[in-house]
Amino acid sequence: MDKTLRINVRTKEATYENTPDEYLKTGGRGLIAKILLKEVKPTCEPLGRNNKLIFAMGLLTGTNASSASRVCIGSKSPLTGGIKESNAGGITAMRLAQLGLKAIIIEDIPEDDKWYYIKVEKDKCTLEPADQYVGMGTFEFCQEMLEKYPDSAVTCIGPAGERQYSAAGIATMDKDKKPNRYSGRGGLGAVMGSKKIKGIVVIDKEPIKIADKKKYKEALKEYTSIINEAPSTLGYKTLGTAATARLSNSLGGLPVNNFSSGEFKEIEQISGENLYKVIQERGGEGKTSHACMPGCIIQCSNIYPDKEGKTIVSPLEYETIGLLGSNLGIADFDTIAKMNSLCNDIGIDTIETGAAIGVAMEGGIAKFGDGEAALRLVKEIGEGTILGRVLGNGAVITGKVLGVINVPAVNGQAMPAYDPRAIKGMGVTYATSPMGADHTYGSTLKAKIEQTSTEGQAELSKNTQKNVAIIDSLGLCLFASGAIGNNHQLLVDLINARHGWDMDVKELKRISEETIRDEHRFNELAGFSIENYRIPEAFTERELPNLKSKFDVRDEDLGQVIVDFKN
Amino acid sequence: MDKTLRINVRTKEATYENTPDEYLKTGGRGLIAKILLKEVKPTCEPLGRNNKLIFAMGLLTGTNASSASRVCIGSKSPLTGGIKESNAGGITAMRLAQLGLKAIIIEDIPEDDKWYYIKVEKDKCTLEPADQYVGMGTFEFCQEMLEKYPDSAVTCIGPAGERQYSAAGIATMDKDKKPNRYSGRGGLGAVMGSKKIKGIVVIDKEPIKIADKKKYKEALKEYTSIINEAPSTLGYKTLGTAATARLSNSLGGLPVNNFSSGEFKEIEQISGENLYKVIQERGGEGKTSHACMPGCIIQCSNIYPDKEGKTIVSPLEYETIGLLGSNLGIADFDTIAKMNSLCNDIGIDTIETGAAIGVAMEGGIAKFGDGEAALRLVKEIGEGTILGRVLGNGAVITGKVLGVINVPAVNGQAMPAYDPRAIKGMGVTYATSPMGADHTYGSTLKAKIEQTSTEGQAELSKNTQKNVAIIDSLGLCLFASGAIGNNHQLLVDLINARHGWDMDVKELKRISEETIRDEHRFNELAGFSIENYRIPEAFTERELPNLKSKFDVRDEDLGQVIVDFKN
Repeated sequence: MDKTLRINVRTKEATYENTPDEYLKTGGRGLIAKILLKEVKPTCEPLGRNNKLIFAMGLLTGTNASSASRVCIGSKSPLTGGIKESNAGGITAMRLAQLGLKAIIIEDIPEDDKWYYIKVEKDKCTLEPADQYVGMGTFEFCQEMLEKYPDSAVTCIGPAGERQYSAAGIATMDKDKKPNRYSGRGGLGAVMGSKKIKGIVVIDKEPIKIADKKKYKEALKEYTSIINEAPSTLGYKTLGTAATARLSNSLGGLPVNNFSSGEFKEIEQISGENLYKVIQERGGEGKTSHACMPGCIIQCSNIYPDKEGKTIVSPLEYETIGLLGSNLGIADFDTIAKMNSLCNDIGIDTIETGAAIGVAMEGGIAKFGDGEAALRLVKEIGEGTILGRVLGNGAVITGKVLGVINVPAVNGQAMPAYDPRAIKGMGVTYATSPMGADHTYGSTLKAKIEQTSTEGQAELSKNTQKNVAIIDSLGLCLFASGAIGNNHQLLVDLINARHGWDMDVKELKRISEETIRDEHRFNELAGFSIENYRIPEAFTERELPNLKSKFDVRDEDLGQVIVDFKN
Repeated sequence: MDKTLRINVRTKEATYENTPDEYLKTGGRGLIAKILLKEVKPTCEPLGRNNKLIFAMGLLTGTNASSASRVCIGSKSPLTGGIKESNAGGITAMRLAQLGLKAIIIEDIPEDDKWYYIKVEKDKCTLEPADQYVGMGTFEFCQEMLEKYPDSAVTCIGPAGERQYSAAGIATMDKDKKPNRYSGRGGLGAVMGSKKIKGIVVIDKEPIKIADKKKYKEALKEYTSIINEAPSTLGYKTLGTAATARLSNSLGGLPVNNFSSGEFKEIEQISGENLYKVIQERGGEGKTSHACMPGCIIQCSNIYPDKEGKTIVSPLEYETIGLLGSNLGIADFDTIAKMNSLCNDIGIDTIETGAAIGVAMEGGIAKFGDGEAALRLVKEIGEGTILGRVLGNGAVITGKVLGVINVPAVNGQAMPAYDPRAIKGMGVTYATSPMGADHTYGSTLKAKIEQTSTEGQAELSKNTQKNVAIIDSLGLCLFASGAIGNNHQLLVDLINARHGWDMDVKELKRISEETIRDEHRFNELAGFSIENYRIPEAFTERELPNLKSKFDVRDEDLGQVIVDFKN
């Protein structure tokens, strides 16, 4: 069990390998870092033959523990030039883990122009011709696969990945078999596109093997009850992530008009509360709560319907509302949802897309608030016009091309929907993450701290980053981790019962810190230095108007975070 | 004498300062490195308020020594993110030095959208409104200035710089008062554009002050006679730099079709010999030899006329022939000259433009060899269409947008017309230069070495880089230095006579090595690490078809060059 499946897209060979012992006790993001550091030359061209695309299962992935089967995908990023892991919900990782797979490594690039999809059966993997699917959106491709393989789980790219846009993501089916879950960040879809792989289709289904069923059952009971009873769970179940809109706005850190302001006049129109109301009122296919993977208790997802009750998009989440909404001066859920749906079908990150369009608006391509224009720009990304290709390569490239220097990005990757001048711990995470600006690397949004103060933010971010590294090696959702808190013993109990190990909390923490160290080591070898881990002048020189705040955590403090993690 | 003129474009104040003692014994590129390292935060946004644009005069600039008055312009580069100095011939530096100026430092950015030009008189500098000149090509702007100030020397940007394209250069008038000489590389025009300065106009003329006229006369006599008698001088005077086309092609290192080959079937059509013949045959305004600055003996420049004998462009040089010619599969001088003339008027680097269009052609935007299409693309750069803006930001951005990974560039800057797989010492210079790919940082083209061998290339490049650093602090042209060779004593004699110093060769060399160290130090503080000084996979993985050669100087050897220069 726990095999590694290695697929060479040049030779079309797929081989099953025993996962090396030193990889066994990590998973997900931690495993990706180890494989990349061992197998990929950090200075390599991200879209060239020396890069690899890795799917890594977490230590709890495939079990029936709630929110524990996120798919972790990693590579050297064409967006940041550094290491990248981006994880998402859905059913693919669960299914791969259940087939006894610890990781899939996709390597090399093909010599010809032919496209394939990867078909994964029980102990069998083949590359199947996919030229007929090229140009297809993710929804149509998944539909085609479901017709061929009705019970399959599919992960795929859209036209954005085929065109190797640096903002292209990889879509994964949710439990309703729609490709709605996204490993969106860092251009992993482009890496998949460079390897001419349209999708991965998991055919067979197996029950997961649990080493110690009794202990597992006990631990699971406690785990389930903790999540069930956590106040945060009820919050996510009711309003989803969209609840964050009001919170960010009240902190003065909601991105508005290309991060030129942190407060949105029309905040109530895009609040979680209003989202709940609209979905309720419209009814039909709409759902205010929805699980992305089977067995999830939290169910933070939703289904957003149009006036006729037909689904526009699922889910409509905070980051998208922030970046494709307020960041573009757009306060209309229908427009945001349509853009979101288009992005999902094209296969592109909504955060990067929203940031890029915001920059383009500042560059005079369209007016802030013009929803029609914004929709048209998203369509251009799908169509591959020159402007669409510019936007599809993200905010930094868009800024370069249009001569805009106020670009909300760190190390090539756009900021999520938290202004670092208002939520400074998040700024520290953006700056010091080896992934570029990434809120999931260590969110400090809900920390008990004066958010605009510079004091303690570096330490706060560092501790949060350490905790997330644990979660990300398990396949766990951050919202489950929020409920579990510091009860790491419970996580270790689950892991030990699942695998028949006797790991302790100390070891789990050690392995997780190793993950961060591995990631920084990869970046260092890729040419990153401490001076690269900074917030751009658009945020250190330009004041947030209402708060009168700049990002002013000292360079030395940012540098110390990196130094601490490296050692 | 030897004042520094500091101009703040926000306050519109111009002040004359005494040049600090520690700057006195360097000049040109060396002085730029010192000022940047002291005054500019290396991590700053290149187009933001913390960057500065510096004009620095060389130690011999302003004298009547042949080929010694190149204008050195520097800044943090928006193209590479590192330090940048780019020098050119023409008359501006000579005139500035003659007014007693050692350097001009242009700092900050304006708070409003108004444009100015800088008017430099004897001991007086003012900012004059220039809104009426915005959008003007360099030729028209210079014409306007000449009508206003008939005896002025003008340096300016075109629309490319105004739009802050990363490939925008700064044009300088030649002795015929045409803006034909270019500080083309690294996007210095964009920095000038970010400061909303359209041009610098030098009004007054002064005789230069020579400290020891007798010694100067003696040294000058020897200097002049050495250059006059050097065989290289005759070569440059006859065929100009275009002679290199045949040489590069014979070495298999001429860029052809986006560096996919090193030999051009139609080489004879674009050879220096043919250029000479066409100019001779057409007559009219055409000149096979021409000086860019008064008193130059070498006169490597030319004037290329159309069939009616009217000037298309002056000069038509090898780098342009290579990048806008063979690199695009174009063998027709008229087309290349027209593109060149357009680039000069738009104010954009022909090397970067040719490389960007080559990448665009590989990306399917036009066919290799299609001169009409190439001309249209150059026009689009001037017009500012989205595709034009992509191209105007250089080869790397173009590759990103169009999904092309075979991009001939190092650290963001396009390679000149020498394939590093055929001329490996040049590859070492490209890789290890703090300026990005730059042949003028240490050309090994004519070195007595097996060009495709890996042995000795790092050492060769290193020594050449050291020698160039001397030349670049004097304001000297590389072609004069070719004639002078290792006769550094003669250069020191000229310097001492001019300034009344008693410098020795050792000190000159020490100062020059300090220049390279300063430059690497700036880059290090800007976030460059040793791993950034590499040749991309397009050249280390992809074989040059005829030579069957890859760039294979070891990473360790490249790293050692950097380490040696830093210490």
